[in-house]
Amino acid sequence: MTKIEEARKGIVGESIKVVAERENVSPEFLLEGLCEGRIVIPWNRLREIKKPCGIGEGLRTKVNANIGTSPDVCDVELEVKKLKAALDAGADTVMDLSTGGDIGEIRRRLISICDVPFGTVPIYQAGIEAIERYGAIVKMREEDIFEAIREHARDGVDFMTIHAGLTMKGVERLKKQGRLTDVVSRGGTFLIGWMLHNERENPLYEKFDLVLEIAREYDITLSLGDGLRPGSIMDSSDRAQIEELLTIGELVDRAREACVQVIVEGPGHVPLDEIQASVLLEKKVCKGAPFYVLGPLVTDIASGYDHIAGAIGGAIASASGADFLCYVTPSEHLSIPSPEDVEEGVIGAKIAAHAGDMVKGIKGAMEWDEEMSKARKNLDWERQIKLSINPDKARRIHDRYPSRGVGCSMCGKYCAVELINQFLRGEG
Amino acid sequence: MTKIEEARKGIVGESIKVVAERENVSPEFLLEGLCEGRIVIPWNRLREIKKPCGIGEGLRTKVNANIGTSPDVCDVELEVKKLKAALDAGADTVMDLSTGGDIGEIRRRLISICDVPFGTVPIYQAGIEAIERYGAIVKMREEDIFEAIREHARDGVDFMTIHAGLTMKGVERLKKQGRLTDVVSRGGTFLIGWMLHNERENPLYEKFDLVLEIAREYDITLSLGDGLRPGSIMDSSDRAQIEELLTIGELVDRAREACVQVIVEGPGHVPLDEIQASVLLEKKVCKGAPFYVLGPLVTDIASGYDHIAGAIGGAIASASGADFLCYVTPSEHLSIPSPEDVEEGVIGAKIAAHAGDMVKGIKGAMEWDEEMSKARKNLDWERQIKLSINPDKARRIHDRYPSRGVGCSMCGKYCAVELINQFLRGEG
Repeated sequence: MTKIEEARKGIVGESIKVVAERENVSPEFLLEGLCEGRIVIPWNRLREIKKPCGIGEGLRTKVNANIGTSPDVCDVELEVKKLKAALDAGADTVMDLSTGGDIGEIRRRLISICDVPFGTVPIYQAGIEAIERYGAIVKMREEDIFEAIREHARDGVDFMTIHAGLTMKGVERLKKQGRLTDVVSRGGTFLIGWMLHNERENPLYEKFDLVLEIAREYDITLSLGDGLRPGSIMDSSDRAQIEELLTIGELVDRAREACVQVIVEGPGHVPLDEIQASVLLEKKVCKGAPFYVLGPLVTDIASGYDHIAGAIGGAIASASGADFLCYVTPSEHLSIPSPEDVEEGVIGAKIAAHAGDMVKGIKGAMEWDEEMSKARKNLDWERQIKLSINPDKARRIHDRYPSRGVGCSMCGKYCAVELINQFLRGEG
Repeated sequence: MTKIEEARKGIVGESIKVVAERENVSPEFLLEGLCEGRIVIPWNRLREIKKPCGIGEGLRTKVNANIGTSPDVCDVELEVKKLKAALDAGADTVMDLSTGGDIGEIRRRLISICDVPFGTVPIYQAGIEAIERYGAIVKMREEDIFEAIREHARDGVDFMTIHAGLTMKGVERLKKQGRLTDVVSRGGTFLIGWMLHNERENPLYEKFDLVLEIAREYDITLSLGDGLRPGSIMDSSDRAQIEELLTIGELVDRAREACVQVIVEGPGHVPLDEIQASVLLEKKVCKGAPFYVLGPLVTDIASGYDHIAGAIGGAIASASGADFLCYVTPSEHLSIPSPEDVEEGVIGAKIAAHAGDMVKGIKGAMEWDEEMSKARKNLDWERQIKLSINPDKARRIHDRYPSRGVGCSMCGKYCAVELINQFLRGEG
């Protein structure tokens, strides 16, 4: 049985118990969310996960870190470092997007040391192997795609991006739309190239039942990818994007019927005032399915600081109801990230997730801030540092310029907190 | 005549011409904004400013960088470095908040090399000199406060924080409110200590006409400080804060009557879903006066990354109508900032300001993003780097891992932009 099937029968299995405890909710709350498809627990039945999580309504907003090799930078030890940086910084899940080297071996190495849910995009491997085997992505055979999905499933992958909502109809709408940046999804590009060359519908759409069969066998969570997501603020919320979302909504229904957990991927590049509508639309069209957004970036000009542009968009998305933020690193649009970039990206996304959680009523979110403010009021520096999003960095900054006062080196003996304590309580 | 008086007479002076050109608006647009108090041009009549700016409705959202010594870290050369870091990163204005060393000498040194509007908080100097002269802030004489304002004015300071909205009534409401963090404004603390000890009303409020007289003489822009701004998310939008805002609204009226330019300072620590209301309330209560916010920070737990928490809040504030963002650096709440922190803080705030400008219809804002997206579409790396918010950092990241493809090291030969160009246009 899949987790949805168990939930529908009211069975509180081991995974439900562990996740309920980690999420600080009741098992019944999780069961209800699983039944209705508003919550998923990405957990391949072959995997052991030390730190599993739930994703969806009523739960803390989660953060994913993308790592992986490229044809230009292909060093598995570097990827291991990135994985550790992501986990140390508090990533809730990790996706391996490797496109360089022995993709299968890299994945197996990374998954073996990853103690959080692990995701992949099997079409990358299928497309790249098609180049190696037949000389071109467009020569990829349909079976290759499903074999890649099966291989990832057997390796224990917990959730997979599947661009099944990308259809010929979407490509037509894309062409009519007149976009500035046509397609920026790698998986989307691979598939569109294949579809146009072969004049055939997307196999992931046409044979979605086969995808569901594999997902069901391993109890894998499907992450329906948005191959037509805009790659520019100028293209945001356009007809091609929404066409794909409508199809994804229909596929969500089918996944639920098949008792397969499913989440929905979203953009990308979204101006600040469209984010709330974007989340609302996904929640309506996909009947409450968890929403997994990439950033979103509120501007295109922040290269080198896209983790900040992504934190702005992610915070608004989280507050508006998005459930899962894919981090963006400072190297987005410029380079493959370094381990330091991975750390910065995770922390930025975690701040965004938390800022949203505080205002959508997630248990414990506001309390964290309250504890910090109490520590500030009490000038308790050890506690302030401990409560910081990254205590190591907070300590490094605090210790850089030592203070002779009870405060920090910003105000020294003129610390407002110290002075007002004296003035208001007559201690001065 | 002050700039407001000139504007009311329809005089297009040299300063209006320069600023209109820099802001890419007509002189008439500026004159109208000045007349109605919706726009200010901070520019002391004694100063020459190479890069003046306007602040207010219809103009690009501006970013201020705070620098200055503290009792613990007092090195004027370090402050010069911070000033240069702020200017290089694109700060529109700089405030010197020095509280250590010879405050007057430091100010004169910094202002002499600052080519943007320069702000200060004269009460700091008055309070600190009171400690030196009489042994305690509470022994400060009223004349000391106005003499500090005069000294700053004579030194050419373009805008000054004046906590004139802080009254006994506000302190009473503060006490009744029951706050977690009472007062975190240094200027506010100095004044409240003085008011409680001397059982006297705030001289800046009682003798606001004298403040106006000095401001008028030098054509200084007053920045009405919020001494009662909350220092914690838990205290946001409380009665003490709003009480002070109401008084500030009345003082705005009086400043306009006296033909003195005025802006209003705002918090601070504001949960994400209260920012829009906070901007709206200021605009209503202060009849459209430019709003100058500190961050705002959307969470208290981001110590070490408060520039990111501030960018989230600043972007929403900017989009909601705030006109002027005071940056927050990664060292906020932990330490006095380093020159590197200053750079990070300015860039974060500039991204936030721009994200807001894009959606509130500021001319040229969206066009910048459009140019970037075109450069991405064309895989024009030199242009992408040039259009980045910080080209030096963008180049460093891009060059770190060289690519053998036409794209970057993230995707290498599988660059989606390159592939889709081939597929959609039949080049592949």
